[in-house]
Amino acid sequence: MQFTSERHLDDDVLEREFTLGEIPGILWTPASAPAPAPLILVGHPGGLRRMYPRLVARARHSAAEGFASATIELPGAGDRPRSAAAEQARADLRRALEAGEPVDDEIVDRLVLPLVDKAVPEWRSALDALLALREIGGPVGYSGGVIAIGLRLAVVEPRISAALLFAGSFVPRAMFEEARQVTIPLQVLLQWDDDGNDRQMALDLFDAFGSKEKTLHANMGGHTGVPQFEGDAGNRFFVRHLT
Amino acid sequence: MQFTSERHLDDDVLEREFTLGEIPGILWTPASAPAPAPLILVGHPGGLRRMYPRLVARARHSAAEGFASATIELPGAGDRPRSAAAEQARADLRRALEAGEPVDDEIVDRLVLPLVDKAVPEWRSALDALLALREIGGPVGYSGGVIAIGLRLAVVEPRISAALLFAGSFVPRAMFEEARQVTIPLQVLLQWDDDGNDRQMALDLFDAFGSKEKTLHANMGGHTGVPQFEGDAGNRFFVRHLT
Repeated sequence: MQFTSERHLDDDVLEREFTLGEIPGILWTPASAPAPAPLILVGHPGGLRRMYPRLVARARHSAAEGFASATIELPGAGDRPRSAAAEQARADLRRALEAGEPVDDEIVDRLVLPLVDKAVPEWRSALDALLALREIGGPVGYSGGVIAIGLRLAVVEPRISAALLFAGSFVPRAMFEEARQVTIPLQVLLQWDDDGNDRQMALDLFDAFGSKEKTLHANMGGHTGVPQFEGDAGNRFFVRHLT
Repeated sequence: MQFTSERHLDDDVLEREFTLGEIPGILWTPASAPAPAPLILVGHPGGLRRMYPRLVARARHSAAEGFASATIELPGAGDRPRSAAAEQARADLRRALEAGEPVDDEIVDRLVLPLVDKAVPEWRSALDALLALREIGGPVGYSGGVIAIGLRLAVVEPRISAALLFAGSFVPRAMFEEARQVTIPLQVLLQWDDDGNDRQMALDLFDAFGSKEKTLHANMGGHTGVPQFEGDAGNRFFVRHLT
Protein backbone atom coordinates (compact mmCIF):
# COMPACT_ATOMS: atom_id res chain seq x y z
CA MET A 1 0.00 0.00 0.00
CA GLN A 2 1.48 3.26 -1.16
CA PHE A 3 0.07 6.70 -0.41
CA THR A 4 0.12 8.90 -3.51
CA SER A 5 -1.56 12.11 -2.28
CA GLU A 6 -2.72 13.70 0.93
CA ARG A 7 -4.97 16.63 1.73
CA HIS A 8 -6.93 17.99 4.66
CA LEU A 9 -10.63 18.50 4.08
CA ASP A 10 -12.39 21.41 5.79
CA ASP A 11 -13.81 19.41 8.63
CA ASP A 12 -10.61 18.01 9.99
CA VAL A 13 -10.68 14.86 7.86
CA LEU A 14 -7.43 13.66 6.30
CA GLU A 15 -7.95 12.28 2.77
CA ARG A 16 -5.21 10.12 1.30
CA GLU A 17 -5.20 8.42 -2.08
CA PHE A 18 -3.26 5.20 -2.26
CA THR A 19 -2.48 2.31 -4.54
CA LEU A 20 -2.50 -1.30 -3.54
CA GLY A 21 -0.52 -2.88 -6.36
CA GLU A 22 -2.45 -1.72 -9.42
CA ILE A 23 -5.61 -0.91 -7.46
CA PRO A 24 -6.33 2.74 -6.60
CA GLY A 25 -8.05 3.58 -3.34
CA ILE A 26 -8.87 6.37 -0.91
CA LEU A 27 -8.56 6.51 2.87
CA TRP A 28 -10.30 9.10 5.04
CA THR A 29 -9.34 9.43 8.70
CA PRO A 30 -10.69 11.81 11.35
CA ALA A 31 -7.55 13.88 11.95
CA SER A 32 -8.35 14.61 15.57
CA ALA A 33 -9.26 11.09 16.69
CA PRO A 34 -7.23 10.32 19.81
CA ALA A 35 -7.09 6.52 19.43
CA PRO A 36 -6.97 4.10 16.50
CA ALA A 37 -10.31 4.49 14.73
CA PRO A 38 -12.85 1.83 13.79
CA LEU A 39 -12.94 1.37 10.02
CA ILE A 40 -15.77 1.37 7.50
CA LEU A 41 -15.12 -0.15 4.09
CA VAL A 42 -17.11 2.02 1.69
CA GLY A 43 -18.61 0.03 -1.16
CA HIS A 44 -19.76 1.54 -4.47
CA PRO A 45 -20.84 0.32 -7.94
CA GLY A 46 -17.43 0.98 -9.55
CA GLY A 47 -15.83 4.19 -10.85
CA LEU A 48 -14.11 6.00 -7.97
CA ARG A 49 -13.85 9.33 -9.80
CA ARG A 50 -17.50 9.39 -10.80
CA MET A 51 -18.62 8.26 -7.34
CA TYR A 52 -16.21 10.55 -5.45
CA PRO A 53 -18.72 13.24 -4.35
CA ARG A 54 -21.01 10.69 -2.76
CA LEU A 55 -18.14 8.67 -1.28
CA VAL A 56 -16.48 11.66 0.36
CA ALA A 57 -19.84 12.80 1.75
CA ARG A 58 -20.36 9.38 3.35
CA ALA A 59 -16.78 9.37 4.67
CA ARG A 60 -17.15 12.83 6.25
CA HIS A 61 -20.43 11.84 7.83
CA SER A 62 -18.77 8.75 9.33
CA ALA A 63 -15.72 10.74 10.43
CA ALA A 64 -18.02 12.90 12.54
CA GLU A 65 -18.64 9.74 14.62
CA GLY A 66 -14.92 8.95 14.80
CA PHE A 67 -14.86 6.35 12.04
CA ALA A 68 -12.14 6.01 9.39
CA SER A 69 -13.42 5.10 5.90
CA ALA A 70 -11.66 3.48 2.98
CA THR A 71 -12.54 2.36 -0.50
CA ILE A 72 -10.84 0.76 -3.47
CA GLU A 73 -11.69 0.69 -7.17
CA LEU A 74 -13.60 -2.36 -8.41
CA PRO A 75 -12.14 -4.75 -11.00
CA GLY A 76 -12.89 -3.57 -14.54
CA ALA A 77 -14.03 -0.11 -13.42
CA GLY A 78 -12.58 3.43 -13.36
CA ASP A 79 -8.99 3.39 -14.63
CA ARG A 80 -8.59 -0.36 -14.21
CA PRO A 81 -8.42 -2.68 -17.25
CA ARG A 82 -11.81 -3.68 -18.66
CA SER A 83 -12.94 -7.31 -18.87
CA ALA A 84 -14.51 -8.14 -22.25
CA ALA A 85 -16.76 -10.76 -20.66
CA ALA A 86 -18.00 -8.34 -18.00
CA GLU A 87 -18.63 -5.62 -20.59
CA GLN A 88 -20.64 -8.11 -22.65
CA ALA A 89 -22.69 -9.19 -19.64
CA ARG A 90 -23.33 -5.54 -18.68
CA ALA A 91 -24.51 -4.80 -22.24
CA ASP A 92 -26.82 -7.85 -22.14
CA LEU A 93 -28.26 -6.70 -18.81
CA ARG A 94 -28.84 -3.18 -20.10
CA ARG A 95 -30.55 -4.54 -23.20
CA ALA A 96 -32.91 -6.73 -21.12
CA LEU A 97 -33.76 -3.83 -18.78
CA GLU A 98 -34.37 -1.42 -21.65
CA ALA A 99 -36.60 -3.96 -23.38
CA GLY A 100 -38.53 -4.38 -20.13
CA GLU A 101 -37.75 -8.11 -20.21
CA PRO A 102 -37.18 -10.21 -17.10
CA VAL A 103 -33.44 -10.41 -16.48
CA ASP A 104 -32.12 -13.89 -17.15
CA ASP A 105 -30.33 -15.54 -14.21
CA GLU A 106 -27.56 -16.50 -16.62
CA ILE A 107 -26.79 -12.83 -17.38
CA VAL A 108 -26.65 -11.99 -13.66
CA ASP A 109 -24.32 -14.93 -13.05
CA ARG A 110 -22.00 -13.85 -15.90
CA LEU A 111 -21.94 -10.26 -14.65
CA VAL A 112 -21.78 -10.64 -10.88
CA LEU A 113 -20.06 -13.93 -9.99
CA PRO A 114 -16.67 -13.12 -11.62
CA LEU A 115 -16.82 -9.61 -10.15
CA VAL A 116 -17.40 -10.99 -6.64
CA ASP A 117 -14.70 -13.63 -7.07
CA LYS A 118 -12.17 -11.00 -8.11
CA ALA A 119 -13.20 -8.09 -5.87
CA VAL A 120 -13.53 -9.86 -2.53
CA PRO A 121 -9.86 -10.95 -2.23
CA GLU A 122 -8.87 -7.39 -3.18
CA TRP A 123 -10.98 -5.87 -0.39
CA ARG A 124 -9.48 -8.40 2.02
CA SER A 125 -5.94 -7.40 0.94
CA ALA A 126 -6.90 -3.76 1.39
CA LEU A 127 -8.14 -4.63 4.87
CA ASP A 128 -4.79 -6.27 5.71
CA ALA A 129 -2.97 -3.10 4.65
CA LEU A 130 -5.40 -0.70 6.35
CA LEU A 131 -5.41 -2.53 9.69
CA ALA A 132 -1.61 -2.39 9.69
CA LEU A 133 -1.79 1.43 9.88
CA ARG A 134 -1.26 2.92 13.34
CA GLU A 135 -4.29 5.24 13.05
CA ILE A 136 -6.74 2.43 12.28
CA GLY A 137 -7.84 0.00 14.92
CA GLY A 138 -11.09 -1.72 14.15
CA PRO A 139 -13.65 -3.13 14.48
CA VAL A 140 -14.54 -3.06 10.80
CA GLY A 141 -17.84 -2.46 9.04
CA TYR A 142 -18.78 -2.75 5.38
CA SER A 143 -21.18 -0.26 3.81
CA GLY A 144 -23.06 -0.10 0.52
CA GLY A 145 -22.00 -0.78 -3.04
CA VAL A 146 -22.56 -4.02 -4.93
CA ILE A 147 -24.61 -6.10 -2.49
CA ALA A 148 -23.20 -9.42 -3.72
CA ILE A 149 -19.68 -8.23 -2.77
CA GLY A 150 -20.88 -7.17 0.69
CA LEU A 151 -22.67 -10.48 1.09
CA ARG A 152 -19.57 -12.56 0.22
CA LEU A 153 -17.37 -10.41 2.45
CA ALA A 154 -19.80 -10.87 5.33
CA VAL A 155 -19.46 -14.63 4.91
CA VAL A 156 -15.72 -15.04 4.35
CA GLU A 157 -14.11 -12.12 6.23
CA PRO A 158 -14.29 -12.61 10.00
CA ARG A 159 -12.84 -9.15 10.67
CA ILE A 160 -16.05 -7.53 9.40
CA SER A 161 -18.39 -7.08 12.40
CA ALA A 162 -21.42 -5.42 10.81
CA ALA A 163 -22.61 -4.57 7.31
CA LEU A 164 -24.94 -1.98 5.86
CA LEU A 165 -26.02 -3.39 2.50
CA PHE A 166 -27.74 -1.59 -0.38
CA ALA A 167 -30.23 -3.94 -2.06
CA GLY A 168 -29.90 -2.11 -5.34
CA SER A 169 -28.18 -4.59 -7.64
CA PHE A 170 -28.73 -8.16 -8.79
CA VAL A 171 -27.61 -11.11 -6.71
CA PRO A 172 -26.94 -14.47 -8.39
CA ARG A 173 -29.42 -17.13 -7.23
CA ALA A 174 -26.48 -19.30 -6.19
CA MET A 175 -25.55 -16.70 -3.58
CA PHE A 176 -28.85 -16.99 -1.70
CA GLU A 177 -27.38 -20.05 0.00
CA GLU A 178 -24.38 -17.95 1.06
CA ALA A 179 -26.80 -15.40 2.53
CA ARG A 180 -27.96 -18.05 5.02
CA GLN A 181 -24.39 -18.26 6.31
CA VAL A 182 -24.24 -14.55 7.19
CA THR A 183 -24.49 -14.10 10.96
CA ILE A 184 -23.23 -10.55 11.59
CA PRO A 185 -25.68 -7.69 12.27
CA LEU A 186 -27.07 -6.27 9.04
CA GLN A 187 -28.92 -3.16 7.99
CA VAL A 188 -30.29 -3.51 4.46
CA LEU A 189 -31.39 -0.49 2.45
CA LEU A 190 -34.01 -0.99 -0.24
CA GLN A 191 -35.37 1.70 -2.54
CA TRP A 192 -38.98 0.52 -2.76
CA ASP A 193 -39.65 2.28 -6.08
CA ASP A 194 -36.33 1.45 -7.75
CA ASP A 195 -37.44 0.61 -11.30
CA GLY A 196 -34.19 -1.06 -12.31
CA ASN A 197 -34.23 -3.37 -9.30
CA ASP A 198 -36.13 -6.55 -8.48
CA ARG A 199 -37.98 -5.73 -5.25
CA GLN A 200 -39.15 -9.28 -4.61
CA MET A 201 -35.58 -10.56 -5.02
CA ALA A 202 -34.41 -8.01 -2.47
CA LEU A 203 -37.11 -9.11 0.00
CA ASP A 204 -36.26 -12.78 -0.58
CA LEU A 205 -32.60 -11.99 0.03
CA PHE A 206 -33.38 -10.12 3.25
CA ASP A 207 -35.40 -13.15 4.34
CA ALA A 208 -32.50 -15.48 3.51
CA PHE A 209 -29.85 -13.74 5.62
CA GLY A 210 -29.00 -15.89 8.64
CA SER A 211 -28.28 -12.95 10.96
CA LYS A 212 -30.27 -12.77 14.20
CA GLU A 213 -30.11 -8.98 14.04
CA LYS A 214 -31.14 -7.81 10.60
CA THR A 215 -33.07 -4.67 9.77
CA LEU A 216 -34.60 -3.67 6.45
CA HIS A 217 -35.06 0.03 5.69
CA ALA A 218 -37.24 0.56 2.64
CA ASN A 219 -37.72 4.09 1.30
CA MET A 220 -39.10 5.94 -1.67
CA GLY A 221 -37.09 8.09 -4.08
CA GLY A 222 -35.87 5.76 -6.82
CA HIS A 223 -32.48 4.06 -7.21
CA THR A 224 -30.34 7.09 -6.39
CA GLY A 225 -32.83 8.78 -4.04
CA VAL A 226 -31.86 7.23 -0.69
CA PRO A 227 -33.14 9.83 1.84
CA GLN A 228 -30.53 11.85 3.70
CA PHE A 229 -31.78 10.62 7.06
CA GLU A 230 -30.52 7.14 6.14
CA GLY A 231 -27.00 8.55 6.50
CA ASP A 232 -27.75 9.20 10.17
CA ALA A 233 -29.44 5.82 10.52
CA GLY A 234 -26.32 4.18 9.05
CA ASN A 235 -24.07 6.02 11.47
CA ARG A 236 -26.17 4.90 14.41
CA PHE A 237 -26.07 1.30 13.16
CA PHE A 238 -22.27 1.39 13.07
CA VAL A 239 -22.05 3.23 16.41
CA ARG A 240 -24.06 0.35 17.93
CA HIS A 241 -21.81 -2.32 16.47
CA LEU A 242 -18.33 -0.82 16.04
CA THR A 243 -17.90 1.22 19.22
CA MET B 1 -61.98 15.95 29.81
CA GLN B 2 -61.48 15.51 33.51
CA PHE B 3 -58.18 14.84 35.23
CA THR B 4 -58.52 12.16 37.91
CA SER B 5 -54.94 11.76 39.15
CA GLU B 6 -51.58 13.41 38.81
CA ARG B 7 -48.04 12.34 39.65
CA HIS B 8 -44.51 13.33 38.77
CA LEU B 9 -42.32 10.58 37.35
CA ASP B 10 -38.61 10.53 38.15
CA ASP B 11 -37.48 12.16 34.97
CA ASP B 12 -39.49 15.33 35.19
CA VAL B 13 -42.49 13.96 33.34
CA LEU B 14 -45.96 14.81 34.61
CA GLU B 15 -48.39 11.88 34.30
CA ARG B 16 -52.10 12.62 34.53
CA GLU B 17 -54.94 10.15 34.22
CA PHE B 18 -58.13 11.54 32.81
CA THR B 19 -61.57 10.54 31.65
CA LEU B 20 -63.21 11.74 28.49
CA GLY B 21 -66.84 10.86 29.15
CA GLU B 22 -66.65 7.16 29.95
CA ILE B 23 -63.25 6.71 28.28
CA PRO B 24 -60.16 6.55 30.50
CA GLY B 25 -56.88 7.99 29.24
CA ILE B 26 -53.42 9.10 30.28
CA LEU B 27 -51.47 12.24 29.41
CA TRP B 28 -47.71 12.62 29.86
CA THR B 29 -46.12 16.05 29.55
CA PRO B 30 -42.48 17.06 29.89
CA ALA B 31 -42.71 19.20 33.05
CA SER B 32 -39.87 21.47 32.09
CA ALA B 33 -40.89 22.22 28.49
CA PRO B 34 -40.87 25.99 28.05
CA ALA B 35 -43.44 26.22 25.26
CA PRO B 36 -46.58 24.27 24.30
CA ALA B 37 -45.32 20.81 23.33
CA PRO B 38 -45.95 18.84 20.15
CA LEU B 39 -48.20 15.86 20.88
CA ILE B 40 -47.89 12.16 20.10
CA LEU B 41 -51.03 10.04 20.27
CA VAL B 42 -49.84 6.70 21.61
CA GLY B 43 -51.68 3.76 20.09
CA HIS B 44 -51.88 0.27 21.65
CA PRO B 45 -53.84 -2.96 21.13
CA GLY B 46 -56.30 -2.24 23.96
CA GLY B 47 -55.98 -2.69 27.73
CA LEU B 48 -54.34 0.40 29.22
CA ARG B 49 -53.44 -1.27 32.53
CA ARG B 50 -51.80 -4.28 30.88
CA MET B 51 -49.98 -2.07 28.37
CA TYR B 52 -49.00 0.60 30.92
CA PRO B 53 -45.31 -0.36 31.35
CA ARG B 54 -44.67 -0.16 27.61
CA LEU B 55 -46.79 2.96 27.14
CA VAL B 56 -45.06 4.91 29.91
CA ALA B 57 -41.66 3.86 28.57
CA ARG B 58 -42.57 5.22 25.13
CA ALA B 59 -43.98 8.42 26.65
CA ARG B 60 -40.81 9.03 28.71
CA HIS B 61 -38.65 8.41 25.67
CA SER B 62 -40.68 10.95 23.70
CA ALA B 63 -40.68 13.43 26.59
CA ALA B 64 -36.88 13.46 26.41
CA GLU B 65 -37.33 15.09 22.97
CA GLY B 66 -39.88 17.56 24.32
CA PHE B 67 -42.99 15.71 23.13
CA ALA B 68 -46.19 15.30 25.12
CA SER B 69 -47.88 11.89 24.78
CA ALA B 70 -51.45 10.84 25.33
CA THR B 71 -53.48 7.67 25.01
CA ILE B 72 -57.05 6.54 25.58
CA GLU B 73 -58.58 3.12 26.16
CA LEU B 74 -59.98 1.33 23.09
CA PRO B 75 -63.67 0.45 22.78
CA GLY B 76 -64.40 -2.95 24.34
CA ALA B 77 -61.02 -3.14 26.12
CA GLY B 78 -59.71 -2.61 29.65
CA ASP B 79 -62.51 -1.48 31.97
CA ARG B 80 -64.80 -0.47 29.11
CA PRO B 81 -67.93 -2.51 28.29
CA ARG B 82 -67.29 -5.53 26.09
CA SER B 83 -68.96 -5.97 22.69
CA ALA B 84 -70.34 -9.49 22.20
CA ALA B 85 -69.78 -9.29 18.43
CA ALA B 86 -66.15 -8.20 18.86
CA GLU B 87 -65.51 -10.95 21.43
CA GLN B 88 -66.95 -13.50 19.01
CA ALA B 89 -64.80 -12.22 16.14
CA ARG B 90 -61.70 -12.28 18.36
CA ALA B 91 -62.45 -15.89 19.36
CA ASP B 92 -62.92 -16.84 15.70
CA LEU B 93 -59.59 -15.20 14.82
CA ARG B 94 -57.80 -16.99 17.66
CA ARG B 95 -59.30 -20.31 16.58
CA ALA B 96 -58.12 -19.81 12.97
CA LEU B 97 -54.61 -18.83 14.07
CA GLU B 98 -54.31 -21.74 16.49
CA ALA B 99 -55.48 -24.14 13.81
CA GLY B 100 -52.88 -22.69 11.46
CA GLU B 101 -55.63 -21.86 8.99
CA PRO B 102 -55.59 -18.81 6.71
CA VAL B 103 -57.57 -16.04 8.38
CA ASP B 104 -60.82 -15.38 6.58
CA ASP B 105 -61.31 -11.78 5.39
CA GLU B 106 -64.80 -11.91 6.85
CA ILE B 107 -63.42 -12.49 10.38
CA VAL B 108 -61.00 -9.56 10.00
CA ASP B 109 -63.83 -7.32 8.79
CA ARG B 110 -66.06 -8.32 11.72
CA LEU B 111 -63.24 -7.71 14.21
CA VAL B 112 -61.56 -4.58 12.88
CA LEU B 113 -64.09 -2.46 10.97
CA PRO B 114 -66.45 -1.80 13.93
CA LEU B 115 -63.43 -1.14 16.16
CA VAL B 116 -62.04 1.45 13.73
CA ASP B 117 -65.46 3.04 13.24
CA LYS B 118 -65.90 3.42 16.99
CA ALA B 119 -62.33 4.25 18.05
CA VAL B 120 -61.43 6.90 15.48
CA PRO B 121 -64.07 9.47 16.53
CA GLU B 122 -62.99 8.90 20.15
CA TRP B 123 -59.35 9.67 19.36
CA ARG B 124 -60.47 12.78 17.49
CA SER B 125 -62.49 13.93 20.50
CA ALA B 126 -59.50 13.30 22.71
CA LEU B 127 -57.44 15.39 20.30
CA ASP B 128 -59.95 18.27 20.59
CA ALA B 129 -59.65 18.17 24.37
CA LEU B 130 -55.86 17.75 24.44
CA LEU B 131 -55.17 20.58 22.00
CA ALA B 132 -57.32 22.87 24.18
CA LEU B 133 -54.78 22.47 27.01
CA ARG B 134 -52.34 25.35 27.43
CA GLU B 135 -49.30 23.03 27.70
CA ILE B 136 -49.98 21.25 24.40
CA GLY B 137 -49.42 22.96 21.09
CA GLY B 138 -48.98 20.59 18.21
CA PRO B 139 -48.13 19.48 15.61
CA VAL B 140 -49.53 16.02 16.29
CA GLY B 141 -48.17 12.59 15.50
CA TYR B 142 -49.78 9.16 15.87
CA SER B 143 -47.71 6.19 16.99
CA GLY B 144 -48.28 2.43 17.05
CA GLY B 145 -51.22 0.34 18.16
CA VAL B 146 -53.88 -1.13 15.89
CA ILE B 147 -52.64 -0.19 12.42
CA ALA B 148 -56.15 0.09 10.94
CA ILE B 149 -56.95 2.82 13.50
CA GLY B 150 -53.77 4.72 12.65
CA LEU B 151 -54.52 4.35 8.95
CA ARG B 152 -58.06 5.75 9.27
CA LEU B 153 -56.84 8.59 11.50
CA ALA B 154 -54.14 9.46 8.95
CA VAL B 155 -56.86 9.76 6.29
CA VAL B 156 -59.59 11.62 8.17
CA GLU B 157 -57.76 13.73 10.77
CA PRO B 158 -55.92 16.66 9.15
CA ARG B 159 -54.30 17.67 12.45
CA ILE B 160 -52.11 14.53 12.37
CA SER B 161 -48.87 15.44 10.57
CA ALA B 162 -46.94 12.17 10.70
CA ALA B 163 -47.60 8.59 11.76
CA LEU B 164 -45.47 5.74 12.98
CA LEU B 165 -47.49 2.59 12.29
CA PHE B 166 -46.93 -0.92 13.62
CA ALA B 167 -47.80 -3.47 10.94
CA GLY B 168 -48.65 -6.10 13.54
CA SER B 169 -52.40 -6.58 13.19
CA PHE B 170 -54.87 -7.41 10.45
CA VAL B 171 -56.19 -4.75 8.11
CA PRO B 172 -59.52 -5.28 6.33
CA ARG B 173 -59.07 -5.55 2.56
CA ALA B 174 -61.55 -2.68 2.13
CA MET B 175 -59.11 -0.37 3.90
CA PHE B 176 -56.33 -0.85 1.32
CA GLU B 177 -58.14 1.75 -0.80
CA GLU B 178 -58.06 4.15 2.16
CA ALA B 179 -54.30 3.56 2.41
CA ARG B 180 -53.88 5.11 -1.02
CA GLN B 181 -55.40 8.33 0.35
CA VAL B 182 -52.76 8.66 3.08
CA THR B 183 -50.32 11.42 2.17
CA ILE B 184 -48.57 12.29 5.48
CA PRO B 185 -45.03 11.01 6.17
CA LEU B 186 -45.10 7.45 7.50
CA GLN B 187 -42.70 5.16 9.27
CA VAL B 188 -44.00 1.59 9.30
CA LEU B 189 -42.61 -1.02 11.68
CA LEU B 190 -42.83 -4.67 10.67
CA GLN B 191 -41.66 -7.61 12.75
CA TRP B 192 -40.39 -9.83 9.94
CA ASP B 193 -40.70 -13.07 11.94
CA ASP B 194 -44.06 -12.27 13.58
CA ASP B 195 -45.82 -15.65 13.36
CA GLY B 196 -49.29 -14.30 14.09
CA ASN B 197 -49.04 -11.66 11.38
CA ASP B 198 -49.41 -11.81 7.60
CA ARG B 199 -46.09 -10.47 6.28
CA GLN B 200 -47.21 -10.25 2.68
CA MET B 201 -50.30 -8.27 3.71
CA ALA B 202 -48.06 -5.85 5.60
CA LEU B 203 -45.81 -5.40 2.53
CA ASP B 204 -48.85 -4.92 0.28
CA LEU B 205 -50.20 -2.32 2.69
CA PHE B 206 -46.88 -0.47 2.79
CA ASP B 207 -46.93 -0.47 -1.00
CA ALA B 208 -50.48 0.90 -1.03
CA PHE B 209 -49.84 3.95 1.14
CA GLY B 210 -50.01 7.09 -0.98
CA SER B 211 -47.39 9.02 1.02
CA LYS B 212 -44.38 10.32 -0.88
CA GLU B 213 -42.27 9.88 2.25
CA LYS B 214 -42.81 6.41 3.63
CA THR B 215 -40.23 4.23 5.30
CA LEU B 216 -40.51 0.57 6.26
CA HIS B 217 -38.40 -0.74 9.14
CA ALA B 218 -38.45 -4.53 9.29
CA ASN B 219 -36.75 -6.29 12.20
CA MET B 220 -36.44 -9.70 13.81
CA GLY B 221 -37.61 -10.59 17.30
CA GLY B 222 -41.21 -11.76 16.92
CA HIS B 223 -44.42 -9.82 17.55
CA THR B 224 -43.39 -8.24 20.84
CA GLY B 225 -39.66 -8.08 20.11
CA VAL B 226 -39.35 -4.68 18.42
CA PRO B 227 -35.67 -3.77 19.03
CA GLN B 228 -34.96 -0.96 21.49
CA PHE B 229 -33.17 1.08 18.83
CA GLU B 230 -36.51 1.53 17.05
CA GLY B 231 -37.51 3.78 19.96
CA ASP B 232 -34.72 6.13 18.96
CA ALA B 233 -35.59 5.79 15.28
CA GLY B 234 -39.19 6.69 16.12
CA ASN B 235 -38.09 9.76 18.06
CA ARG B 236 -35.96 10.93 15.15
CA PHE B 237 -38.87 10.43 12.76
CA PHE B 238 -41.09 12.63 14.93
CA VAL B 239 -38.32 15.19 15.49
CA ARG B 240 -38.06 15.49 11.69
CA HIS B 241 -41.79 16.03 11.24
CA LEU B 242 -43.13 17.61 14.43
CA THR B 243 -40.45 20.16 15.33
